[in-house]
Amino acid sequence: MDMKFMLQLVEKGSVTVPSLLIEHFHDIGLNEQECMLLIQLHSFLNKGDNFPTFDDLASRMTFDETACADLLRHLIQRGFLSIVQKNDEQIYSEAYSLQPLWEKLLRCAYGKIIDAPSKHNED
Amino acid sequence: MDMKFMLQLVEKGSVTVPSLLIEHFHDIGLNEQECMLLIQLHSFLNKGDNFPTFDDLASRMTFDETACADLLRHLIQRGFLSIVQKNDEQIYSEAYSLQPLWEKLLRCAYGKIIDAPSKHNED
Amino acid sequence: MDMKFMLQLVEKGSVTVPSLLIEHFHDIGLNEQECMLLIQLHSFLNKGDNFPTFDDLASRMTFDETACADLLRHLIQRGFLSIVQKNDEQIYSEAYSLQPLWEKLLRCAYGKIIDAPSKHNED
Amino acid sequence: MDMKFMLQLVEKGSVTVPSLLIEHFHDIGLNEQECMLLIQLHSFLNKGDNFPTFDDLASRMTFDETACADLLRHLIQRGFLSIVQKNDEQIYSEAYSLQPLWEKLLRCAYGKIIDAPSKHNED
Repeated sequence: MDMKFMLQLVEKGSVTVPSLLIEHFHDIGLNEQECMLLIQLHSFLNKGDNFPTFDDLASRMTFDETACADLLRHLIQRGFLSIVQKNDEQIYSEAYSLQPLWEKLLRCAYGKIIDAPSKHNED
Repeated sequence: MDMKFMLQLVEKGSVTVPSLLIEHFHDIGLNEQECMLLIQLHSFLNKGDNFPTFDDLASRMTFDETACADLLRHLIQRGFLSIVQKNDEQIYSEAYSLQPLWEKLLRCAYGKIIDAPSKHNED
Repeated sequence: MDMKFMLQLVEKGSVTVPSLLIEHFHDIGLNEQECMLLIQLHSFLNKGDNFPTFDDLASRMTFDETACADLLRHLIQRGFLSIVQKNDEQIYSEAYSLQPLWEKLLRCAYGKIIDAPSKHNED
Repeated sequence: MDMKFMLQLVEKGSVTVPSLLIEHFHDIGLNEQECMLLIQLHSFLNKGDNFPTFDDLASRMTFDETACADLLRHLIQRGFLSIVQKNDEQIYSEAYSLQPLWEKLLRCAYGKIIDAPSKHNED
């Protein structure tokens, strides 16, 4: 049994992606490439890496650093992503925030529920 | 507080995607569109829906049912996906299996470990 | 490389437990034993097994089937769990529902936000 | 729609707990209280907080800080947990490591596969 490799499998484990994103990325105007890039960002943020480099991100995608930078800028301009200032014990740093993405997804999913003719009355 | 919507948020929750796929899909020759389609399949399989329709899948993607069917066939031909027979209490059914995908990813990640010059000796 | 075992590791993967439960189980009056039993139930429900037996559950816990049945009944009486009728294509079946648990947790977490003196004004 | 609360729900999301732990904690000699404490630790480690205080942990459990410290020491003595030195850009810090836990669980799960009489031959 190759313990070292298996430990890595267990410890790296899984990335949890909100079902909202998987189910509604297309509804809010994203394509698959943009969605995958946001999933990459989400996975870095999740493990406490708040500002991965273009290279970190591009190395896991089909495109290069320049294209990655362009895509990120485009996502920020369209309001899917923002960059925020963090102030952690007097150390200032920049961090990507996916809050704009989650807001769009929540509004989209909520709108669908409101619009849906309810099958039966519920309290 | 809109309890009904929030219950749905909690119950639908998150899709867990193996980090192997997020980190290495490009290394094994997939592009973002193919990867997102496999993530969709994975999310259906995870909740016990073993054979989602082309329409189920395409409705969450940027392309239509025909393109979805083509892409799935292509993934099967290239050995990323298979269709297996299930026999559950005498009821036969078909199911997608992502086992070929996980095998490719495991071999890829394992190869990288073997090839990597180790920084320090470890037992 | 022991492919069969590793495939199982990847395919079984992880159970996603709502952070609400991990962080607030004590606040809503559960102890660790009850919380673990509800996590077990959640993991069965998640993969589409809606009515695991007492034996399924007890085999993963420190207590036996009888104690398991008692604990489940107790959780139902205290409003953390319910049993609902499912009607799937004319086939009736029973299913555990964790909706009462999520409702309690949502009310608890929401109450804490309302009560918390906000650090700065936010819109 | 209470956007602020819902954003928090989505962003906090879920804790991913390896299925190995949920299914086999009892087999490796843990009880529910110990397992829940390790799940808490895992959730802190996952989001990059490598050394939560006894108070951080105890505030989510049914016992107090002293009992929490005792339980952690006991888990370390029994080889389920370790404390390691981290050296990140010349900054030394301590971190809990769950590697001993995952090793025990992997050995346990692997042993069960080896022992199981295989239903049919597989390569």
